[in-house]
Amino acid sequence: MNRLRAAFALHDPALLDRLFDGPARARLEELVDLDPEVVTDLDDGRGLRALGEVEVLITGWGAPRLDEATLAHAPRLRAVVHTAGTVKSFVTEAVWSRGIQVSSAAEANARPVAEYTLAMVLLAGKRVFEATAAYRRLGSLAAAAPASACGNNGLTVGIVGASRTGRQVIELLRPFDVDVLLHDPFVDRAGAGALGAVKVALDDLLRDSDVVSLHAPSLPETYRMIGARELALMADGSTLLNTARGALVDTAALTAEILTGRLRAVLDVTDPEPLPHGHPLYSAEGVLLTPHVAGSLGNELYRLGASAVAELERLAAGLEVAHPVRAEHLATTA
Amino acid sequence: MNRLRAAFALHDPALLDRLFDGPARARLEELVDLDPEVVTDLDDGRGLRALGEVEVLITGWGAPRLDEATLAHAPRLRAVVHTAGTVKSFVTEAVWSRGIQVSSAAEANARPVAEYTLAMVLLAGKRVFEATAAYRRLGSLAAAAPASACGNNGLTVGIVGASRTGRQVIELLRPFDVDVLLHDPFVDRAGAGALGAVKVALDDLLRDSDVVSLHAPSLPETYRMIGARELALMADGSTLLNTARGALVDTAALTAEILTGRLRAVLDVTDPEPLPHGHPLYSAEGVLLTPHVAGSLGNELYRLGASAVAELERLAAGLEVAHPVRAEHLATTA
Repeated sequence: MNRLRAAFALHDPALLDRLFDGPARARLEELVDLDPEVVTDLDDGRGLRALGEVEVLITGWGAPRLDEATLAHAPRLRAVVHTAGTVKSFVTEAVWSRGIQVSSAAEANARPVAEYTLAMVLLAGKRVFEATAAYRRLGSLAAAAPASACGNNGLTVGIVGASRTGRQVIELLRPFDVDVLLHDPFVDRAGAGALGAVKVALDDLLRDSDVVSLHAPSLPETYRMIGARELALMADGSTLLNTARGALVDTAALTAEILTGRLRAVLDVTDPEPLPHGHPLYSAEGVLLTPHVAGSLGNELYRLGASAVAELERLAAGLEVAHPVRAEHLATTA
Repeated sequence: MNRLRAAFALHDPALLDRLFDGPARARLEELVDLDPEVVTDLDDGRGLRALGEVEVLITGWGAPRLDEATLAHAPRLRAVVHTAGTVKSFVTEAVWSRGIQVSSAAEANARPVAEYTLAMVLLAGKRVFEATAAYRRLGSLAAAAPASACGNNGLTVGIVGASRTGRQVIELLRPFDVDVLLHDPFVDRAGAGALGAVKVALDDLLRDSDVVSLHAPSLPETYRMIGARELALMADGSTLLNTARGALVDTAALTAEILTGRLRAVLDVTDPEPLPHGHPLYSAEGVLLTPHVAGSLGNELYRLGASAVAELERLAAGLEVAHPVRAEHLATTA
């Protein structure tokens, strides 16, 4: 068996150690001939020369753009194995037209987002953050008494988007006493049922959910899909949870609903991001704001490296990648 | 079949509607002859007269004390079905010596505590609360970068106490990439393994865990079991999670470790509780303080009522209760 020739294309070579732990790196070196040089910039001559022999390019966040001019320098390239989620920022039409396989670690990257979401759903269902703020203010256990019904026994969770993350969240919710509603234009009633959810229209989901969690891709069609009209449909005291993209939500409309105290929110992403200094969402009592941390952090990056190693195993064995990205899916996915 | 005669003994009759939803109440009335009067006080004549015919007493938080003098008025009493966790506050030696069965809803009440704990473990593992505080202070996504290693891929969680809650937490942690260490003097290595955990000594658990979660009962032997010496064993940046009882932890010693920034904590219970106004734990950045909300809240109380109904089903059918409390267990459980 001929060993494949592979190279890393990363914006920062330091990322290598954060993605691949010792065993993963050792396995990679068993599997493929690795170019010792990490390609960080394809506009300089050295980067382009490195591409000449490469059959597999292992890419990461901020990977250099693979367009016609670049690919002309990579005649042997037959697979791009990406160690992060979306490939939209660097994979161009030229990659698809050459029949180069593209793999992404989006499934592995969805895992921590789903875990973060599960945790926030459980805490939002019990109104924990509200109780924390009230406790700090009152210094009394009376802070535990919520203004209205709460609790995770029969909680209704609305999942917007049966993306990889959306599906993993539904799966993680299985052990709990929650009813899951799903809105996704590309999933039918039977498909939702198979996932463990009930398919509903977005308006019904917003009306009936205690927690609404967004897992839709950022596309022209989803830009500000949650605006003033949609927020007005949400039940008093319900929570909007956004770990997807800030652009899905009209921030001004959400801020207005938060400041009246009618809705609550857990926001890992916002538009703009970060929010400007002094923005009311930093300090509003009904909001937990986190700085885009739901995705892979720390040791969670090793899952992305492990996903790439598994794909290299397949390629070295002459198989197709297990997590292909296809051009025709890009219009409806992240 | 003779229908059993039952009565409620609750400190507040309003609790009835919070514990039993419509269907549970209807089922109760099918099963037993219910005294319409809720006994709130056993020192008045009316309360004691109500006991005369009662075979099953359904008790709740703040139930009146069942001592020799009281039980003399309840010659037919053969079971106490408690709709909360511990029965220590009102069940006396007189109950045991008469062979009255005692059932508790501690298993159902452990459920929300385990859910809260799971959520907090996942967020502590990603240092989410730290990131939130830093984001508010910095207004920059740089707040996402933790000072040291983090992430839930290979997190080590130390469970102190294989109580009902401790066991449920271990079970809920199964789908995640975490290693669970268990310290419990009454569980051996095989027993811990069967639960999905590795038995270790407390000191090793404290040294090796990213998150230490307390689920031990409050007993003379466990008073301040986590003191300055034990906290000093915990790894830099690790998190202490207490949903059990405040008395397990030396609050002053914990506060000192929190204020240096070395440890973090999620505290649903404290000693004293509530903490006095202005206590540094209310505002310390490394602490999430919640006002004793991990247990059953809102619709979660219906699980306690449902647990009592299930016990009544058994008693009406002539069976023993499914969740008995026995005198000999009280020395080692909550």
